[in-house]
Amino acid sequence: MSSADSDHPSARAREAAEAAHPSAPAGDDPATRPTVRLRPKAGRRLSAGAPWAYADELVMDRRTRKLAPGSLVELQDAERAPLGLAAFNPDSVIAARLLDEDPAARVDADWFAARIARAQRLREALFDAPFHRLIHAEADGLPGVVIDRFGDAAAVQPNAAWADARIEALVDALVRVTGVRTVVLNGASRARRAEGLEDGVRVLRGGLDGPVPTPMNGAVYMADLTGGQKTGLFYDQRPNHAFVARLARGGRMLDVFSHVGGFALAALAAGATHALAVDGSARALELAEEGARRSGVADRFETRRADAFEALAALAEEGARFETVVCDPPAFAPSRQAREAGLRAYRRLARMAAPLVAEEGWLTLCSCSHAVDAEAFRAACAQGLRAAGRRARLIWSGRAGPDHPVHPALPETSYLKALVFALD
Amino acid sequence: MSSADSDHPSARAREAAEAAHPSAPAGDDPATRPTVRLRPKAGRRLSAGAPWAYADELVMDRRTRKLAPGSLVELQDAERAPLGLAAFNPDSVIAARLLDEDPAARVDADWFAARIARAQRLREALFDAPFHRLIHAEADGLPGVVIDRFGDAAAVQPNAAWADARIEALVDALVRVTGVRTVVLNGASRARRAEGLEDGVRVLRGGLDGPVPTPMNGAVYMADLTGGQKTGLFYDQRPNHAFVARLARGGRMLDVFSHVGGFALAALAAGATHALAVDGSARALELAEEGARRSGVADRFETRRADAFEALAALAEEGARFETVVCDPPAFAPSRQAREAGLRAYRRLARMAAPLVAEEGWLTLCSCSHAVDAEAFRAACAQGLRAAGRRARLIWSGRAGPDHPVHPALPETSYLKALVFALD
Repeated sequence: MSSADSDHPSARAREAAEAAHPSAPAGDDPATRPTVRLRPKAGRRLSAGAPWAYADELVMDRRTRKLAPGSLVELQDAERAPLGLAAFNPDSVIAARLLDEDPAARVDADWFAARIARAQRLREALFDAPFHRLIHAEADGLPGVVIDRFGDAAAVQPNAAWADARIEALVDALVRVTGVRTVVLNGASRARRAEGLEDGVRVLRGGLDGPVPTPMNGAVYMADLTGGQKTGLFYDQRPNHAFVARLARGGRMLDVFSHVGGFALAALAAGATHALAVDGSARALELAEEGARRSGVADRFETRRADAFEALAALAEEGARFETVVCDPPAFAPSRQAREAGLRAYRRLARMAAPLVAEEGWLTLCSCSHAVDAEAFRAACAQGLRAAGRRARLIWSGRAGPDHPVHPALPETSYLKALVFALD
Repeated sequence: MSSADSDHPSARAREAAEAAHPSAPAGDDPATRPTVRLRPKAGRRLSAGAPWAYADELVMDRRTRKLAPGSLVELQDAERAPLGLAAFNPDSVIAARLLDEDPAARVDADWFAARIARAQRLREALFDAPFHRLIHAEADGLPGVVIDRFGDAAAVQPNAAWADARIEALVDALVRVTGVRTVVLNGASRARRAEGLEDGVRVLRGGLDGPVPTPMNGAVYMADLTGGQKTGLFYDQRPNHAFVARLARGGRMLDVFSHVGGFALAALAAGATHALAVDGSARALELAEEGARRSGVADRFETRRADAFEALAALAEEGARFETVVCDPPAFAPSRQAREAGLRAYRRLARMAAPLVAEEGWLTLCSCSHAVDAEAFRAACAQGLRAAGRRARLIWSGRAGPDHPVHPALPETSYLKALVFALD
């Protein structure tokens, strides 16, 4: 997904920035915090309630440009009235992220603890067990920060410079509020690179003796917190896994881009007779197989390591048919520039998957591309189905689960689309 | 909602049409069917897979204009190649609705039975009991036709002239496929008026001795098939009722625009400690109270007959607070002309409902307005919440349940939006 970086101004600016800035933000004292000011009439998103100000909305004088990435600043409107405490990064398109309405707030472990505790109360209301996304960035009051909870362990992605620089206070608060014993820093994301942060995975607290067995929708998944994709498991698909699993009962399933078996294991646990998981990663399929064993469904589970499109073509050649087919690919359109190519790939996927669906079977097509909105994705899927000559009824338009809340003023952060079609 | 008719050309054309046309369509013989032709380069939606041609896309000569509403015709492209069998209505904006790819298909009870059986197989896969929408118009291959199933009874809305004229064959097929003993014709809808059809409710088969107890989400609802709104019950909210009911456990709920208690009874069945249902209709509240008795939750259920906005203001005055508040109003924007006024009403509703939500409680806001898309509705809700000074996280963006399938090429028929916010 490295192509995605190229659309980000910071990619070009990064080298220069790294030379110009100290490696850590300046010490933060609420009494002497630098101020950053909006240009006259700027701040459209802030006015609408979003906690973001773009670089071109801010007065970028020499002093401001020299602030270290992740510096805490008092954000002011064009008339110098305080708007609140913001994290500032001169190298990021989203140069200021509002952290607190109180411009004098002190961002320490107590401050983090209050936000994590609020997020935790929401998840306790939603789930019976502590396996879920705990912090979903802006919506949970911690811009750029993602934390996934896996029982006694947590994986943290501090995808913004301000949080990366305060990782110790954040982790102290996380341990204090949740009682987790193991904390893994998962610093491998496109967002981090956009912020000029280094990649890397480190165990910050406790230790791990392998992937963490994670219960979800009646199955057990193996979440590899140190070596997997993202934080090790995709909790966002939970309600869509559940919806599809119910449909898949009593039939065969094909799970393309299966990762650790997200749709397949839930379907087998619900009563699918057989599932074939296809993925390009041998490690992901190993984890899926271990998950199937722990879920007690290994005798009905099969994996195939292959390129997804090649596997779809080969299965069509074999005359294979499945009552339920799922395609949950990585983002085909990870940037706005990649949008058209991404839409073509989604169309192609729908066209190639549809012939594998048995008569009156189910086809689930997913997209996690920010750059492709729900309507464009639906249209691409409809075109692919039509090209395949399959009539369909759309019966489910799922989004990410409720542990992935959306800030009401940041609808673009709602990235996941899962469409379930009943085919004729 | 009569204002909605004014935006429909048929409203103006109706009187003239009623004088010009015979009251029933001409007898249909596949061998001598009239043809209707697309204008050159017209048929944009048909090309994209939608079963619709608009009046201004068709060659409207003297002969065509004289066809009775509901006539079956062979639809042809501009080069006279057959596109299929269509239902034609010269008085409707959607003048041709494609019924069958075979231009020679005979639309009789067998033809209806095949489509109803296909729709029934989908619902059997989705639900354990025969209480659901059975036919959802275009997506189920019967343009303009809605059928809701209530165990041994069914309510039919033939909201297009072609189906209204063939109601006997349709009902014969319905009884044959489903075995229902009672069939109610519910001819009271805006869509019917747009097609130039008369309103009226008639029992066509069997009989009813009152509202039908209808199980859904652990509660029992009373569906009044002959006197209620729509077909008597709103099945479309089923997954949203379920999602909110789970959140509402252990707290108090306010259900504004409750109708027969959709959200409230599900919440009480799931474990809410108390629910107050507000609606302007005494009859709807009577049905809600009877539903509460049948659900065994009457001791925790209260109703208040009132205008919703007045009730919200009065409750705020009283200092009332509820852990869960739901507003599920009728369409505030039943037409494109009413869109801006509708959005203002949605904003106002959000602003007035938010103060009644207890700290860290839940607010559910719904819209069934076709003219307000999901993004515009979300923005209106976000503005209302902001005006009320309540911070929120959007945790659920629900649509209609899977017994309300969407034709892949008719996304605008997906009308229902249910947003659940976690408030601070």
